[in-house]
Amino acid sequence: MTVFKQLETLATGESIPLEEALAGLPWNADGLLPAIAQQYDSGEVLMLAWMNRDALAETLDTGRVCYWSRSRRALWRKGESSGQVQRLRELRFDCDGDTILLKVDQTGPACHTGRRDCFYNRVEGDRLVVDRDVLIDPQDLYRQ
Amino acid sequence: MTVFKQLETLATGESIPLEEALAGLPWNADGLLPAIAQQYDSGEVLMLAWMNRDALAETLDTGRVCYWSRSRRALWRKGESSGQVQRLRELRFDCDGDTILLKVDQTGPACHTGRRDCFYNRVEGDRLVVDRDVLIDPQDLYRQ
Repeated sequence: MTVFKQLETLATGESIPLEEALAGLPWNADGLLPAIAQQYDSGEVLMLAWMNRDALAETLDTGRVCYWSRSRRALWRKGESSGQVQRLRELRFDCDGDTILLKVDQTGPACHTGRRDCFYNRVEGDRLVVDRDVLIDPQDLYRQ
Repeated sequence: MTVFKQLETLATGESIPLEEALAGLPWNADGLLPAIAQQYDSGEVLMLAWMNRDALAETLDTGRVCYWSRSRRALWRKGESSGQVQRLRELRFDCDGDTILLKVDQTGPACHTGRRDCFYNRVEGDRLVVDRDVLIDPQDLYRQ
């Protein structure tokens, strides 16, 4: 039985060694898992990005969220250029272990466009509407 | 310029035809995009699943959430066996159009284990702890 199948059968409050769960994570063909970042107190879904084994280990170790950038093919310490870091409050895995949920405390805008979150494109009838303000001009966010 | 690059530059309240955005979605190599389901009023992140073009079209058309099951390789109308459907309240795309956020009204448990959401495995020090109760026994959920 896989470790996440075993977890399904546990009662509330029961646990297994974290190391065992980490060893059983079903990384995809690229060695990645999707990670959802949610603001821990307001519940806003801020963004979705990807983690590899190293990004996850560093995040758990430092408490500062680190992703894997698929475009740059490098570890991406969220906020390293913009200053808009994510502090980890809680980390969760879903029932089959193939999605990570990060409860974070996000400094300022999470989105590279300078908006608070990345999900600012809302379907409204037959239109797609932008419904979030730019809080900080990206030219200021990435000027260093 | 791609349609999502164009959307980045719009001010709050501005919009484009939905059809144009849908035609410009960056489906992955398998023709899928990840979709996060969030309970519309409480903000709980319930689950992450995948949509293909048909699942997205059906969801927008019917207002009842439909995913693509990667294991069964078939459209998966959420709740078709369990009765635990998701009614769509709002649908959003992120800044580069490669993640969907569904604000839904979830009937009962979203998780196939009978728990309210799929993210019941919480990291606590060097343990992984199950911290959600089973609301409905899966044997009852899937008995039909």
